[in-house]
Amino acid sequence: MRLATLRIRGETRAARLDGDEYVLLPFPDLGSLLAAGAQWQEVATQCEGERLPSMDALYAPVVPHPNKIICLGLNYAAHIAEMGRDAPQYPTLFAKYDGALIGAYDAIELPSVSTRVDWEAELAFVIGRAARHVSKDAALPHVAGYTVANDVTVRDYQRRTREFLSGKTFEATTPVGPVLVTADEFNGAEPDLEIRCEVDGEVMQRSRTSDLLFGVADIVAYVSEIITLLPGDLILTGTPGGVGDGRDPKVYLEEGQTLRTTIEGLGETSNVCAPATAT
Amino acid sequence: MRLATLRIRGETRAARLDGDEYVLLPFPDLGSLLAAGAQWQEVATQCEGERLPSMDALYAPVVPHPNKIICLGLNYAAHIAEMGRDAPQYPTLFAKYDGALIGAYDAIELPSVSTRVDWEAELAFVIGRAARHVSKDAALPHVAGYTVANDVTVRDYQRRTREFLSGKTFEATTPVGPVLVTADEFNGAEPDLEIRCEVDGEVMQRSRTSDLLFGVADIVAYVSEIITLLPGDLILTGTPGGVGDGRDPKVYLEEGQTLRTTIEGLGETSNVCAPATAT
Repeated sequence: MRLATLRIRGETRAARLDGDEYVLLPFPDLGSLLAAGAQWQEVATQCEGERLPSMDALYAPVVPHPNKIICLGLNYAAHIAEMGRDAPQYPTLFAKYDGALIGAYDAIELPSVSTRVDWEAELAFVIGRAARHVSKDAALPHVAGYTVANDVTVRDYQRRTREFLSGKTFEATTPVGPVLVTADEFNGAEPDLEIRCEVDGEVMQRSRTSDLLFGVADIVAYVSEIITLLPGDLILTGTPGGVGDGRDPKVYLEEGQTLRTTIEGLGETSNVCAPATAT
Repeated sequence: MRLATLRIRGETRAARLDGDEYVLLPFPDLGSLLAAGAQWQEVATQCEGERLPSMDALYAPVVPHPNKIICLGLNYAAHIAEMGRDAPQYPTLFAKYDGALIGAYDAIELPSVSTRVDWEAELAFVIGRAARHVSKDAALPHVAGYTVANDVTVRDYQRRTREFLSGKTFEATTPVGPVLVTADEFNGAEPDLEIRCEVDGEVMQRSRTSDLLFGVADIVAYVSEIITLLPGDLILTGTPGGVGDGRDPKVYLEEGQTLRTTIEGLGETSNVCAPATAT
């Protein structure tokens, strides 16, 4: 099943894809659907409601307001090497705030204070059932599904201090979507999918999600040692090699460029880079 | 004015202190009051409602569900020295999730996976009006008020990777409260207050908030370059010297100990350390 959060009449609504139409569900977004209880999948399957052609859909971030956005750093061997770091023993976790999230086809706001904006194509997943102290073996049933994200990063802010957060949570920079593909479509296993990032059609990153050092179940188990994962929580699993900052010479995103992030079977986000709106 | 979020009849409610009574306000928490608009201070002042003796009050975190919890690291010279780091040119920002927050007199849950739990007394403030690209000079009117927090930290998890987050966001470890003292009580200036941390009555940290390297206005201006600060956002400004991990020999919190954090004029939090409840 494919679920989304759509923008309609100035609001957002959860929706289920049915052929070439979306069925609007009685929840303001996908996070609210997931928070509605253990039966969310049945509810999403069985609800009927207003329909609209999928080609007319306007996509909000798959989960616009997660309780937590948890990001992994240094989780593909090739990216660890290009950033000059050692392979980690534990998952490197950092956060992002929901003001950073944009829909699958929204513009990326290039910050007025930096020119070092870089791409990081990532497999993301969303929690469907609360998780606290779950083992790796018991972890995957807590995952609602998978989606595409790009952890767009402002490199100079990322490196100004020893903490990544400032460079990772710039307003309106992180596309997530277009849809959540529910975990049952992967038969309860971790997805092994090609992940690709293109800038104006040039392939910059290409890898497989099976190359993650810490996989989805590892991440759920580890985070749940620390804090309760809640339905709707969004986790970005880390990026493979090929970021602009790891190149020689370094390359950054520029106004007017299109950043496309594709994961086999999940879909793609496509985002034009635009100057931040003055406020 | 002193505002709080109280627990009452299985829910939470925003409340205003009036003499030795609390007046319950028609908002589920202080964050909702602040999000209600620019007139929140008038609303809070003028509302009448059910009253209860302040000695019967049960305190939730001052803002239980902020959109953002932003923490500063390395923001007092003595703490930077004891952690063996250099003075920073920019604020070191990291995050925490709201599942880490506890009320002013709740138990701190000692994690089952670590014995290296340490204190970090901190001045905290809450945003009252959205801020995006504000200058330092224009920053303070965006602050609703000030409160007491302790950024209780699990040191081994903090140091497992280069990112602090894992050690900073353990479930039910961060007291915030008991009340928000509104900014007008400081005549629009940054508060210069004694801050103190005691473990079972022994003073472990003592400093003044005027020793912050990056003050409240600096922080608001800097964060607002990156992302929009929203009403109810909670910012912890960093801790002075005297943490347990900076001592020789190192000292950590133990079951049954009481951690008391006091800021002159703002009040105190007092939290017993208890084993995490098994789930």
